[in-house]
Amino acid sequence: MVKKRQILVIGHNTNGCTPEHEKIAYDVGVEIAKSGSVLISGGLGGVMTASAHGAKDAGGLTVGIIPQDDASEANEFCDVVIPTGMGLTRDFLNALSADGVIIVGGGSGTLSETCAAYMNKKPMVAIRNLNGPVMQYIDGYLDHRKNVKIIGVDTAQEAVKKILELITA
Amino acid sequence: MVKKRQILVIGHNTNGCTPEHEKIAYDVGVEIAKSGSVLISGGLGGVMTASAHGAKDAGGLTVGIIPQDDASEANEFCDVVIPTGMGLTRDFLNALSADGVIIVGGGSGTLSETCAAYMNKKPMVAIRNLNGPVMQYIDGYLDHRKNVKIIGVDTAQEAVKKILELITA
Amino acid sequence: MVKKRQILVIGHNTNGCTPEHEKIAYDVGVEIAKSGSVLISGGLGGVMTASAHGAKDAGGLTVGIIPQDDASEANEFCDVVIPTGMGLTRDFLNALSADGVIIVGGGSGTLSETCAAYMNKKPMVAIRNLNGPVMQYIDGYLDHRKNVKIIGVDTAQEAVKKILELITA
Amino acid sequence: MVKKRQILVIGHNTNGCTPEHEKIAYDVGVEIAKSGSVLISGGLGGVMTASAHGAKDAGGLTVGIIPQDDASEANEFCDVVIPTGMGLTRDFLNALSADGVIIVGGGSGTLSETCAAYMNKKPMVAIRNLNGPVMQYIDGYLDHRKNVKIIGVDTAQEAVKKILELITA
Repeated sequence: MVKKRQILVIGHNTNGCTPEHEKIAYDVGVEIAKSGSVLISGGLGGVMTASAHGAKDAGGLTVGIIPQDDASEANEFCDVVIPTGMGLTRDFLNALSADGVIIVGGGSGTLSETCAAYMNKKPMVAIRNLNGPVMQYIDGYLDHRKNVKIIGVDTAQEAVKKILELITA
Repeated sequence: MVKKRQILVIGHNTNGCTPEHEKIAYDVGVEIAKSGSVLISGGLGGVMTASAHGAKDAGGLTVGIIPQDDASEANEFCDVVIPTGMGLTRDFLNALSADGVIIVGGGSGTLSETCAAYMNKKPMVAIRNLNGPVMQYIDGYLDHRKNVKIIGVDTAQEAVKKILELITA
Repeated sequence: MVKKRQILVIGHNTNGCTPEHEKIAYDVGVEIAKSGSVLISGGLGGVMTASAHGAKDAGGLTVGIIPQDDASEANEFCDVVIPTGMGLTRDFLNALSADGVIIVGGGSGTLSETCAAYMNKKPMVAIRNLNGPVMQYIDGYLDHRKNVKIIGVDTAQEAVKKILELITA
Repeated sequence: MVKKRQILVIGHNTNGCTPEHEKIAYDVGVEIAKSGSVLISGGLGGVMTASAHGAKDAGGLTVGIIPQDDASEANEFCDVVIPTGMGLTRDFLNALSADGVIIVGGGSGTLSETCAAYMNKKPMVAIRNLNGPVMQYIDGYLDHRKNVKIIGVDTAQEAVKKILELITA
């Protein structure tokens, strides 16, 4: 198969994103591109824009899976846009499209994608010491099933290195 | 419009559900039916079966929105079955179909539906002192947006009384 | 199981619907209600409104599965509304929710639902001598697989009688 | 925006596909790649495999949007796989992801995608003189709304040339 590794990056949309989150997300995008993997995201603002920006600057391929049915609503750094027209329900498609997930802070939308990834047993890493509802699950499990642990990391480079290990395993 | 109030009940599927959860869910179903509202659920086991069972015993109407594309996979207490064939992505349809949500414990799937309801600003109540990842958000918010608070209640009767107030408001 | 038979009625939305189509759809709704079955529709105008109107006038239960995420967009004759927020993609959910399908004229949306029903091997009947792209398939098959034949009928009463036979078989 | 043009190719899956369809689809894939566009398909067999094969042989980028939730079910020529887990409902996502559509024969599934593309007003071309339910609409409209005409062409090269004109217009 010619299929490339697909790494989903999730985190705050424009509302809630900080320059710190953007910097980390940008660096994650760069590392994903350098690894030859495809960056998958929800195609909108904040962490989604920053990670795709980093991936494009490093010569990578980016896919944005957006809630709207109009591709022009995606951020400007998506090579491929999937305009689902499904609203935020598309959070599940993001998780299904991931071989592995990198979490950069985030709010309820990110928590939703994290649940979807967890239920589908996708490997996940999360950057420590950011904010939002996902942070408390780092190095633990979302529920009693213990499907998959959210592994804590401290930098963008560690995040991509670790997710590649988990995907390969 | 002839549309009835639609109340979604969420919580553990068979895996993770206890007799305590089932009893509470059954009573919630009874109260929903007595109020003349429609019970919406994910149509499978555990809390979903128990609440629909209670609603049917009290003469109510029940709808099960299931992940599979085959209606025979729904539990035996659903008057209407929507076989989405979308897998767990249907969690979002559950939330969208709710005028209000009652949370009875639950794991990652319930947390996913809670996120979906929160992002769509649906009123929510949760029974206190059960287990699982949703409990910590009771009387608080899922993220910084403060869309809607998850109101804590102690009994099935309080839950239905409170959700009806919130829906009417 | 308490699940009732679910009969989907499809046809023109407001654009393209004629008084003749509305009359037939209304009568189909009445017959569905008299049979104790649940009427499922796309919850919007034209044939969808008329069939739900007929079903409500005859004391039946109606479900509208709509493209929007807001239940208030459904027509006024739906007891239960599923606001999918999926746009016209919801055509597939209509077909999946059907034990059998009755086609009353219709355009491209109806053809889409007919394809979805055909691919899911749902029994189908269609009223003859109306207009639109589905008419030519009456008493034939949509493709070489010959999954299920679209049976032609001439009246609303025949349509419901026939679809009930096909569902039971 | 860095977004590339996205061209959807639809037609028979393995069941119903002939060597003639495969040859045409392969050539369409080659032309799409040569134009610098991304090939979008349903990611399974028949025309979907052949067009992706042609695009990969010509150095292009391919995306497969599949019904299953498991990326390994996609054909071997997809660079990016979107495992929707939505079953055939994903036909609508194929159409939404298209800037333009090329139809190579096909059965009910292709007709379904054609309806979805038509309802979303996507430019469409179809290869003449193949088989299946879509052929009769060539150089015409699916219904009275006359959203978009399905333009007939005779070769793979004409198809891609024409769809690029329509997309640019």
